[in-house]
Amino acid sequence: MVQNKQNPRNLTMLTDYYQINMMYAHFKNDLLDKEVVFDVFYRKNPCGGGYAIFAGLEQVVEYIQNIRFTKEDVDYLATVHDYDPDFLQYLLDFRFTGEIWAAPEGTIVFPNEPILKVRTNVLEAQLIETTILNIINHQTLIATKASRVVYAADGDPVLEFGLRRAQGPDAGIYGARAAYIGGVSATSNVLAGKMFSIPIRGTHAHAYVQSYPSELEAFIAFAQAFPDNASLLVDTYDTLNSGVPNAIKTFKMMKERLGDQFQNFGIRLDSGDMAYLSKQARKMLDEAGFPDAKIVASNDLDELLIRDLKLQGAKIDIWGVGTNLITSRDCPSLGGVYKLVAEKEGDQLVPKIKISENPEKITTPGCKKVVRFYDRSTKKAILDLIMLEDEPIPQQDFIAFDPINIWKKKMIRNFVSKEILIPIFQSGQLVYSLPTLKEIRDYAKQELQTISEEMKRLHNPHIYHVDLSKKLWDLKYGLLNQERKR
Amino acid sequence: MVQNKQNPRNLTMLTDYYQINMMYAHFKNDLLDKEVVFDVFYRKNPCGGGYAIFAGLEQVVEYIQNIRFTKEDVDYLATVHDYDPDFLQYLLDFRFTGEIWAAPEGTIVFPNEPILKVRTNVLEAQLIETTILNIINHQTLIATKASRVVYAADGDPVLEFGLRRAQGPDAGIYGARAAYIGGVSATSNVLAGKMFSIPIRGTHAHAYVQSYPSELEAFIAFAQAFPDNASLLVDTYDTLNSGVPNAIKTFKMMKERLGDQFQNFGIRLDSGDMAYLSKQARKMLDEAGFPDAKIVASNDLDELLIRDLKLQGAKIDIWGVGTNLITSRDCPSLGGVYKLVAEKEGDQLVPKIKISENPEKITTPGCKKVVRFYDRSTKKAILDLIMLEDEPIPQQDFIAFDPINIWKKKMIRNFVSKEILIPIFQSGQLVYSLPTLKEIRDYAKQELQTISEEMKRLHNPHIYHVDLSKKLWDLKYGLLNQERKR
Repeated sequence: MVQNKQNPRNLTMLTDYYQINMMYAHFKNDLLDKEVVFDVFYRKNPCGGGYAIFAGLEQVVEYIQNIRFTKEDVDYLATVHDYDPDFLQYLLDFRFTGEIWAAPEGTIVFPNEPILKVRTNVLEAQLIETTILNIINHQTLIATKASRVVYAADGDPVLEFGLRRAQGPDAGIYGARAAYIGGVSATSNVLAGKMFSIPIRGTHAHAYVQSYPSELEAFIAFAQAFPDNASLLVDTYDTLNSGVPNAIKTFKMMKERLGDQFQNFGIRLDSGDMAYLSKQARKMLDEAGFPDAKIVASNDLDELLIRDLKLQGAKIDIWGVGTNLITSRDCPSLGGVYKLVAEKEGDQLVPKIKISENPEKITTPGCKKVVRFYDRSTKKAILDLIMLEDEPIPQQDFIAFDPINIWKKKMIRNFVSKEILIPIFQSGQLVYSLPTLKEIRDYAKQELQTISEEMKRLHNPHIYHVDLSKKLWDLKYGLLNQERKR
Repeated sequence: MVQNKQNPRNLTMLTDYYQINMMYAHFKNDLLDKEVVFDVFYRKNPCGGGYAIFAGLEQVVEYIQNIRFTKEDVDYLATVHDYDPDFLQYLLDFRFTGEIWAAPEGTIVFPNEPILKVRTNVLEAQLIETTILNIINHQTLIATKASRVVYAADGDPVLEFGLRRAQGPDAGIYGARAAYIGGVSATSNVLAGKMFSIPIRGTHAHAYVQSYPSELEAFIAFAQAFPDNASLLVDTYDTLNSGVPNAIKTFKMMKERLGDQFQNFGIRLDSGDMAYLSKQARKMLDEAGFPDAKIVASNDLDELLIRDLKLQGAKIDIWGVGTNLITSRDCPSLGGVYKLVAEKEGDQLVPKIKISENPEKITTPGCKKVVRFYDRSTKKAILDLIMLEDEPIPQQDFIAFDPINIWKKKMIRNFVSKEILIPIFQSGQLVYSLPTLKEIRDYAKQELQTISEEMKRLHNPHIYHVDLSKKLWDLKYGLLNQERKR
C-alpha cells in the first residue's frame, strides 16, 4: 500500500504459494519457453446487477512493472522447500516479458467475457495470476457497487465515508479510488485524496461537540474555523430540539459577521429516521432563511435505502455512504478467475478448454477479442461478441445467437463497433498511456450512458447479450465434444 | 502495506478528513492541552457468534510509532483548506505522546466492553481514531471468522486460500495474519508467510494439468518436483474416472522410486459434491494401499458447509477455505467504534456520556477497566465486569447484575480474575513487549478453552455476561438522567 511514484511498492511475493510451486515444476520440466494465453473474466455481476465497471488496471500496471524478487525473498523461499539453486537464480533474474491486453478502467463489462488477457511463458503467466485477480476483483467490485449507490442517489452527490470499516488500509485506499471511478463525488480518506487527487470531504464527530461546554459553542468554533465549508452534525443531543436550532443560530451569527464569505454550509444527520428528520430540518432551515443550507445524511446507507428514502420524499442533498459501500456488504467479493485458453505447441497456438461437471464453469477456448456493437443512432450498446483474435469484425448487418439457447437469434444492424481489450504491455514494455483518475471517472460516466436504464435496475435488470462468433462457438463445442469422448 | 521492520510504512494520512478538521478547530480554540479518554468497543459479535478474537494490535503499535506528517503531506493539506501556518507546523512536529491500553492480541472479547483505550490530548486522540478502527475492525473480524471455521473443522487443519478474492493486498496479507491468529494452520499467501512466519501451503491449479500432454504426466512431473509435499488436484477432467486413478498411479510410481522419501502426499478436490467424491476417493486410495494419502477440499467452503459435510461423513482431512473466510462474506465488517468517555476539566477527569434515541448507542462513561472472572476450578470465564479505573477488584464472593435487566442477578464465587486491558503506550513510549504471531495464536487457542462450548455454537450461542460495577452503573444512569433533564 501507500505507493508513491518514486518508491513504488513491490508486490512480487503477494501470490499464492502454488504459483511458485507450479513455476518450479515447469522449470524442472524445461517448460521455460512454453507460451500460453490466460483470460481473466468473472461469471456473475456483483450485487445482482446488470453490469460491472472494470477497475484496478493502473495498480496492475504498477505491479507488473515492479516485479522483482529480492535476495531476501529468495532466501525465504529457500527455507520453505529445497528448490534447485538454478530456480532461485531464475527468480532473481525474473522480469515480466510478455503481453497484456485489458479493458481501459471505467469500461462497462459483463460476465463471461475476457476483461484482461495475458500472453507469455507459462512461468510468468502463473506468477502474476493471484496478484492480478486480487487487484481487479477488489476494485471492479467497489467501482460497481459505488455506481449502484450513485445511481440510486439520482444526481445527488455521494461521499465515500467507509475507511474505518474497510478490510484494512488498502481496502480503504483503493476502495476510495474505485468508488471515485464508480461515480462518488468525494471521499473522507485523506491519504486516498492525496494519492489520487480525489476531492476530500468531512464534517465533525459527536465527540467534537462533546468537547465543548455546549453544542452551540462547538458549532460556532467549527464554523469559524471553516467559514467556507461548515457541515454541522446535529444529532449529538437532540436533532430537532437542539441540533438544528443551534445550527441555525450559528448560521445567522456567521452570516451577520461574514456575509457571503460564509458559504457552503449545512447540517449532517447521522441517526434517527432520515426521511422524517430531513423533512423537518429542511422546513426549519428554510423558515430561518437558509434554503441553501445542505442536508447531508450518513447512517448505514446503501443503494436500496437511498432509493427508499428518496421515494419517501426525504430532503437529503448529499449522501455519505460508509460500510455498505466500502465492503460491498451484500456481495463482498467478485469471483474473477484466470483461465488457460491457449498454448503454443510447436509453432501453433492451440486453443485449450477447461471442462467441468458444472456447465457454467466450462471455459471458452482460444486467443480472443471482445467487440462491442452500438446502435449507430442511439449510441446504446446492443451486444458484445467474443471472437477469435484473427476473425474480421463484422462491418455489415449480421445475425448473432445466444451461445446457450442457440435458437435465440438477433439481427444486428446499423451499428458501430469498438474493441474492448487494448494492448497494455508488449514484450514486457508498457505500451499504454495511463489516464488520470479523473479521466477514468469521466469515461465510466460516459460508459454508463451507453447502457439502457433497464440494465441499471438495482435488481433483476435486463440481461445484456454477450455472444460468441460462429467460429468461436464451433471451436468451443467441437473441443467440448472431443474432450467428452476421451 | 508490505511493511518491513527497517522501513515501516507511514499511515499518518490514512485518516478521515474530519479528524484533521476537528484537530484544526480544536487548535484554533486553544484546546491543545485538553486531555480526553476514548474507548474502542463494538456492539455485536461477528457472524451471529458468541465472541470475538481481538487482533491487529501489532499493526496499531507500528502505526502509532511511525506517525509523522511529511512536508509533502502538509503541502497537500494546504491545498485543501486555508489552514493557519501554525497548524501546519504543529502537524510537522506531531508525535503521539499519550497513553494506550489494549487487550493483548488473541484475547476473547465481547460486545460493549472497551478493547482498546486512548488517553491523550484531544487533537492526538482524534487523529488516530480512523486508523485504529480500520486495523482493529478488519483483523478482529477475520480472526473471529477464522476461529469459527476452525471450530467447524473440529481438529482438521484449515488452510487460508483467499488472497485472490481479498479486498486488496492488505486484506490478503493482514487477513492471513488474522486468520492464523484465529487458528488456521497455514496460508497460501507467500508474502504473508514471509512477513509473519506463517506456514505456507499450496498444491497446483487446473491450468498446470492442462499444460501437460496428459493428466498423468502432469501429476508425475509435480510429484517429482515435490516428493515431500505433492497434493494433486484431481478434478481437471473427471475426478473419479481420471484424476484419482492417475493420482494413485503417480503415488505408486513415486513410492517404488523413492520409498519413504515420498511422503506427505494426497489429492485435492475443488468441484462437485464434496461428501460423495471424498468418500469414493478415500475408498479408492485405501484400496490402492494409500490410507495415509490426505484429501484436501476447497470449493466455496465456510463454517456451515464444513459442519454439514462432516455431519454427512465426508472423508476430508484438510479444508482449504478462500473467499468466505478472507472477506467474512456473511458479515464483512465489524462495527468497532471509538467514543469519548471522559475529559479533563481543570484537574478533574470528568466522565462523558453520549446519549442517543437508540438505547444501544448510549455509551458507558468514565475511564474504565475490564475485569474477567474465571471459575477457580473449571478455569472457565464466568463474567466480565466493567469497572471504573480506581475501583478495587472484588476479592470475595459478590453479586453482579445485568445492566439492562437489573433484576437479573448472579452470585460470583470461587473465582480468579484478570484485567483485560494492559498498558501499551505510556507518555508516547511503547511499554509493551510485542509477542510473536505464533505466541498470539497459542494465546488465542488457550483463550478459546476458557469459554464454554455453548458460546462457540455457530448460531444463537449462549450470551456471555458483561456487567457494570454498581458504581459505574450509578454513574451511567445518573448522567443519563441528568442529560435527559437538559
